[in-house]
Amino acid sequence: MNLSVCQMMVVESKEDNLKKAESMIRRSVLENKANLVVLPEIFNGPYSIEAMQAIAEPEGGPTTQLLSRLAAELKIIVVGGSIAEAADGRIYNTAFIYNEEGERVGRHRKMHLFDVNIVGGVSFEESSIVAPGNDVTVVETSLGKIGVAICYDMRFPELMRLMTLQGAEMIVVPAAFNTTTGPAHWKDTIKMRAVDNQVFFAAASPARNLASDYHAYGFSQVVDPWGTVLAETDETEGIITATLNPQHLTAVREQLPLLKHRRTDLYELKECQ
Amino acid sequence: MNLSVCQMMVVESKEDNLKKAESMIRRSVLENKANLVVLPEIFNGPYSIEAMQAIAEPEGGPTTQLLSRLAAELKIIVVGGSIAEAADGRIYNTAFIYNEEGERVGRHRKMHLFDVNIVGGVSFEESSIVAPGNDVTVVETSLGKIGVAICYDMRFPELMRLMTLQGAEMIVVPAAFNTTTGPAHWKDTIKMRAVDNQVFFAAASPARNLASDYHAYGFSQVVDPWGTVLAETDETEGIITATLNPQHLTAVREQLPLLKHRRTDLYELKECQ
Repeated sequence: MNLSVCQMMVVESKEDNLKKAESMIRRSVLENKANLVVLPEIFNGPYSIEAMQAIAEPEGGPTTQLLSRLAAELKIIVVGGSIAEAADGRIYNTAFIYNEEGERVGRHRKMHLFDVNIVGGVSFEESSIVAPGNDVTVVETSLGKIGVAICYDMRFPELMRLMTLQGAEMIVVPAAFNTTTGPAHWKDTIKMRAVDNQVFFAAASPARNLASDYHAYGFSQVVDPWGTVLAETDETEGIITATLNPQHLTAVREQLPLLKHRRTDLYELKECQ
Repeated sequence: MNLSVCQMMVVESKEDNLKKAESMIRRSVLENKANLVVLPEIFNGPYSIEAMQAIAEPEGGPTTQLLSRLAAELKIIVVGGSIAEAADGRIYNTAFIYNEEGERVGRHRKMHLFDVNIVGGVSFEESSIVAPGNDVTVVETSLGKIGVAICYDMRFPELMRLMTLQGAEMIVVPAAFNTTTGPAHWKDTIKMRAVDNQVFFAAASPARNLASDYHAYGFSQVVDPWGTVLAETDETEGIITATLNPQHLTAVREQLPLLKHRRTDLYELKECQ
């Protein structure tokens, strides 16, 4: 199976962003034979407090309609990056996932909100506008179980492990690290989530738009369960594609049996009820 | 405070290894002003099933006597790598920790045993000779709380997190990755344990001895809570020293509050009773 990540340049206009997303999804399938296409975090407008309020739309709005229609037409799975979702009078940072029939098979609302204030670097208070999701998301698909999380969620080993324990053999993370945390932590985090959990890991960033207030890091990657990079790029717009071989996952889990060697007699990680 | 790691070349003779350990500990203090000295995993004999059986000794044997005496004489903390410890009719892979008075203030018995069989790479069945320890180890010292684990233990995010939740601000891991897993995973694992848990992390390997059956990777490192490498080396014998600044840990935890942002309302990690 082939997985494509569309590292798109997100601009001000929602209309332009949707056109760009559509064209990159189509190219992923036509040029790269993708079965699964991943978009970045907040791909239909700028990642900023003000913009998220302005571009928020409910499920069933123009963005999710487009994703559903493309998934069905192209017969692919779409992990639709994330959008500012208007629901319950609140805004969530939400990834919608569609199957080859265009059915919405899953939804992840970002659980860990990005409230940081790094001296001389990035400062952001996502919780001033976004409400947190409360669910671990593992989606059943024709390509197996896929764990989905969003950006800052991947900082938390507990969530990555819970998705793995719930059967995920692939973790897909729409994200938008920045030019402070990206150079410091992005690639190592991707690699070690893959290695620790012995999963395929795809992390999708927007391209770096220096005209925007928030400078996304870029450098989308797909990594295999041994931590080998299968596909990567730089900070510019483009599509990367990797072929994933499930037998490699089985071999890694057999030869270096980390998941089997967990001392579940001594420690327990579980979801709270 | 200064932390030194002695990446010593471990040879066949226990007597020679103890002499080497003593001389490197003394040099760490005299030349590098170390307050805390760390030795590698199984530093008093080869890391092999046969050798561990032959060199095993109880607490109070020549190796731990030496470590205690040096800690008291030099007024330092010693994380005594690990040794094959004979106890209860079994053998454990055990790290003994001594304070500035030479008192044994902690003991970690390796919890996760290295049973792997990588095609074309390393093959080892530690559990054929070693019994597993059952305790998370965080030691109170004059330099703060120190988490101690051994080699393969560091593969498990749960254990690293539990030590952090129990107050460790520094994690020290005597280890002996090999020339298969070392190039693939060693440095990334060290960095991400430091970054995820926002702790100082010191990983101590033996030097690579090609005359030995087991080829240790080397490349001992000390990393700060942001993931920056403070001290590192290659595969040869030598001492590395890093100055640790506790204010840096406080700043990282404030500016990127990962530990505060854990969704403890949604997931729970705990020791089993």
